This record gives sequence, structure tokens and C-alpha cells, in this order.
Amino acid sequence: MVFSWFGLRKRRVVAHTLKPRQEKVEREDKVDLSDMTPDVVPYLGQVAYFELAVFESLTRAVTAAPNLEAKEGLSAAAGEVLAKHHGLVAELRKKKVDPAVAMAPFAPAIDTFEELTSGRNWYEMLLGVYLTAGFLDDFFVRLVSGLPKALRPRVEEILETDRTADVIVNLLKEGIAADPKLASQLALWGRRLVGDTQLVARSALQLSGNHDDDEQRLEPVFTDLIAAHSRRMDELGLTA
Amino acid sequence: MVFSWFGLRKRRVVAHTLKPRQEKVEREDKVDLSDMTPDVVPYLGQVAYFELAVFESLTRAVTAAPNLEAKEGLSAAAGEVLAKHHGLVAELRKKKVDPAVAMAPFAPAIDTFEELTSGRNWYEMLLGVYLTAGFLDDFFVRLVSGLPKALRPRVEEILETDRTADVIVNLLKEGIAADPKLASQLALWGRRLVGDTQLVARSALQLSGNHDDDEQRLEPVFTDLIAAHSRRMDELGLTA
Repeated sequence: MVFSWFGLRKRRVVAHTLKPRQEKVEREDKVDLSDMTPDVVPYLGQVAYFELAVFESLTRAVTAAPNLEAKEGLSAAAGEVLAKHHGLVAELRKKKVDPAVAMAPFAPAIDTFEELTSGRNWYEMLLGVYLTAGFLDDFFVRLVSGLPKALRPRVEEILETDRTADVIVNLLKEGIAADPKLASQLALWGRRLVGDTQLVARSALQLSGNHDDDEQRLEPVFTDLIAAHSRRMDELGLTA
Repeated sequence: MVFSWFGLRKRRVVAHTLKPRQEKVEREDKVDLSDMTPDVVPYLGQVAYFELAVFESLTRAVTAAPNLEAKEGLSAAAGEVLAKHHGLVAELRKKKVDPAVAMAPFAPAIDTFEELTSGRNWYEMLLGVYLTAGFLDDFFVRLVSGLPKALRPRVEEILETDRTADVIVNLLKEGIAADPKLASQLALWGRRLVGDTQLVARSALQLSGNHDDDEQRLEPVFTDLIAAHSRRMDELGLTA
């Protein structure tokens, strides 16, 4: 996949070709989900609310941070996520849509999701944000191709951030190094998150109604998204 | 005073003169506190930590917001305060100072202050942020004249934001309009906040050690800051 949350770009490098624009090539490799992309306003509303929820989760992690370095790093991460939210809200305003109205239909499900994935302690909170936002940002980027052409590069740019995953990954690695028991607890937690996260992704799609058809189209996409999830777990030394 | 938090500029207009740069003139009117300004690193560390604390308070208000409009507006306000924090942190990094180390000495007192001023409900939380950050941003701007010359305009620019007070003021006005009993509760709360806020301001100053001298210098400054506080209360229809 091309974009992933917080800059962990995992590239499927095509070694035998020389392409100046690697990313474009990769994108073309992907299963096209454009006809499953919701309409612009619900798309923007859902992603905007999701980013706001991620922001709120991160701010809880800022408040609960055990030291100032962590607070400082996580607040920068929160700022980047908030910028995504505001970028999407600005797109809604450009369309003369009240962002609150566009976001409202998605609030209950996303709030429940955030509650289910918020974790029982600071490290679970961090892992929850990292894995769920990683998965869903990936997913939402895949739907960009179904948006009106003029909007696509702007939304891609909004959703693409490249700096802050390191903050969370490093905090998690430090925690795991200091307390080896944490690894098994977090591995379990990471595996538990995948189901709910997939549900949120599926609920965002405009399906054809033909169950077998839809599943056949979606299967490779979710296989990819879950592979990216496993790579995130691997990087932390957790068994996916 | 020239700068005030969230853009509520209250100008002492000098009606009989025509000055193209009003603000400059006003600034010169002020009591000069430059010799009481702490050294650069403690100044930046304290203000950076304070803005981080304001950010955290605002994010709690985002999470507790009763509706999406409020959440949306307050998250924008939180983003602006976070930008102040990061602006100051960037200045520390430019000086090769670890921001966490520079902020650490101020964390305990500011944490306690934030706890004391966080309020018992959402409206008290909002008023607390509005009044304390308004007061202390004003105060910290007054100390800028004691910083090295090259730094002054940058810090002034960082601390000067102009957009988001309206969000909080409007939310408070709506709340008061919907529940008139709220006004007296908030008026009491607003009056209670002044004492603790002044203590934080005083603790930031490098005093001469000569009590009478210091008090004489500080008296007009605090009179001014309290007058600005009263104007903030007035605007909300609260008796200061």
C-alpha cells in the first residue's frame, strides 16, 4: 500500500523496473474500489469525524503520558491528526456543507469504536490509536480514487502525513523493552483490534448488495490491509 | 493592553492623535517589565509548558462538548494553542535546548494550577481556560520586551492569535442564555480564578528582592491585567 498512517510507508518495490514515480505505479497495482466509494459529503464527513476521534484519543494519551518527552512527542502527533481533521472540514466548507451536519451520522458508530479500542492502560491506548488509525487511514486513502477528480490530490495530501508514527512506535518499543510481559498483553490487544476495525471500514463502503460479488471484490483489499496491520505488529515485535 | 488571548484586543484608543501604528504606541505606554523577564530558556520553557497545559484543558473541553459544533470549534481553538506550544518548543530547539528539560521545572506548579482551575463542569472548564489563558498570555507578552531583541518579534507572533476566543465566548453566552442560573455560578467562578492566576504570573518574575520596590513596579501591571480580566467577564455579562 502507498500511504500509511504516520509515515510508515511499506512499499511493494518492483525491483526489475526503473520507474521514477514508484508510488503511482503501486497505486495502479491496487484493486480499484472507486465504485464503492461513498458520495463526497458522507466520505468527507466520516473521515473528518474519524480524524477528530483519533485526535481525541491522542490527547488522552498526551494527558496520561508518564513524562514530558512523551507528552511533547504525542502532542505533535495529535497536532498532525487535528490538521487532517481541519483539512477535511475545510473541504466540506468549500462545498457549503456544515461540517457538523456532515459528520453527525458517523459519530455514534465511531464513538463506540473509539470506546472499544481505547484500551485499559496507556500502552494499550497508544497501540489502539496506532493500529486502528493506521488501518483506517490506509483504507480511506484507497477510496480516494472514487472521489471527484479535482478533490483526489487534495484529500490524498490531507491524509498523507509522514512524521509522527515514530513517536508512538518508539514509546511502545521502550515500554516493551522495560517490561517484557507487556509484549504478550499488547500482542493480544493488537489481535483483538482487527475485527472491530474491519467492521468500521466495511460500514463505510457502498456495497452493490450482491453479497458474493462484494466479498470477492473486498477480499484482496482486506487481505492487504491486514498484511499492513501485521507489519505494524511485527515492527513492534508483537505476534500478529 | 495590546495582545489578548484569542483575539479580544481591547485597545486604549488615543482619540486625539492620528497614529498609523496604534499598537506600537500602546506598547510604549506600558510599564516596562523587561528587567523582571526571566532568562530566555526558562521563559520559553515556562510559556511552552503553560500552552501545553492550556491545550490539554481545551482537549478535555473538546471531549466533553455536548455537540459537534462545539467540538469542532473547540478543536480549532485547541489547534491554535498547540501551535503556540510548538512554536515555543521550536525556539528552544533552535537554541539546542531539550524542550522537556526546559519545561520540567515549571510542570508541577502549572499542573497544580490547571487542576485548581479546571472547574466542576463543562462551562466552568471553558471559563477557566478562557480567563486564565487570557490573563497569562497577556502577562507573558508583557515580558517579551526583556527577551533578546532578535527573539522578540518571533515570540510575539507565536503568542498572538486572533481567531478562536470567539468560539469559547459564544459557547459561554449560549449556555448562560439557556440557563440564567449559570451566570451567577460562573461569575463566582471567574472571581475565584483571579487569585491563583496572579500567583502563577508572579512566580514567573525575576524580582529584585526589594519587596516594596517590586510591589510598586508591579502594581500598575496587575491593575491593568485585572482590568482586562474584568472586561472579559463583562463581555459575558458576568459581574467581575
